[in-house]
Amino acid sequence: MSHMLAYEDFTVGRQFQLGPRRVTTEEIIAFAEEFDPQPFHLDGDSEQARQTGGLIASGWHICGLFMAMACEAFINNSLSDGAPGVEEVRWMKPLRPRDTLSGVVTVGERRVSRSRPSRGFVQFETNLTNQSGETIASLRYPAMVRLRNPENFSDDAAS
Amino acid sequence: MSHMLAYEDFTVGRQFQLGPRRVTTEEIIAFAEEFDPQPFHLDGDSEQARQTGGLIASGWHICGLFMAMACEAFINNSLSDGAPGVEEVRWMKPLRPRDTLSGVVTVGERRVSRSRPSRGFVQFETNLTNQSGETIASLRYPAMVRLRNPENFSDDAAS
Repeated sequence: MSHMLAYEDFTVGRQFQLGPRRVTTEEIIAFAEEFDPQPFHLDGDSEQARQTGGLIASGWHICGLFMAMACEAFINNSLSDGAPGVEEVRWMKPLRPRDTLSGVVTVGERRVSRSRPSRGFVQFETNLTNQSGETIASLRYPAMVRLRNPENFSDDAAS
Repeated sequence: MSHMLAYEDFTVGRQFQLGPRRVTTEEIIAFAEEFDPQPFHLDGDSEQARQTGGLIASGWHICGLFMAMACEAFINNSLSDGAPGVEEVRWMKPLRPRDTLSGVVTVGERRVSRSRPSRGFVQFETNLTNQSGETIASLRYPAMVRLRNPENFSDDAAS
């Protein structure tokens, strides 16, 4: 597992590119049918969708697409142990059919866990954009990542 | 639309019951394959899943199940205009195959929008539990809800 990204590799400011990922009408509707069946996510001809300029993806779908892109970009190549939650999600602009979603994850603050010093918390700060460079959403959450060498690591923030 | 829940109906402290909703192995894996393909969400026999006691659902899947239950319970019977984001998600315990998810949404603070006084922001504070009454996750986010009678409504927080 030595080639996997460990806590030590998530240095503050390091960035990971996500996507690009083109989004279809069909997947927007399929997600909405299962998880968020509101008219503006289900039917571009609904009154509610027409008021917002047409069909828009569920905000939770955007979160899922973020996670899929992040797994592909670096999480599945890391010693990730999941996350205790999400500190903030902001949905700024609609994601629409045929939009292309891209993103950047920037490593924010990090610290080694006091109770389990074999792992640490790494802030992943994400900005998602469409093909016009407009920000669609941002997310911030602390991921738990194992250390490669807990014995040989020291970090100011852990003291 | 007069029978739909409007901003006026979301009084502070009002509660809505969500679920119950039984979760299957198949849907946990299907969600993970599409949105969160990490070993502990995909394969109960993986080393990573065995370290956490077996297959666990993606935290984003829990969010989607919350939204599906909330749409069914009250959102699709309301004058909801979506949400600008999520203030906090906490994943406290794993959601596993054959667990039954339930929840309570409590209306927290609310205020009429200053820029668009035909609608307001209503805090939805959610607690999700399993069949043993253990809290699986909590979510807090401000929903945008239209007023039934913007002309006739006054609210201290809007001043």
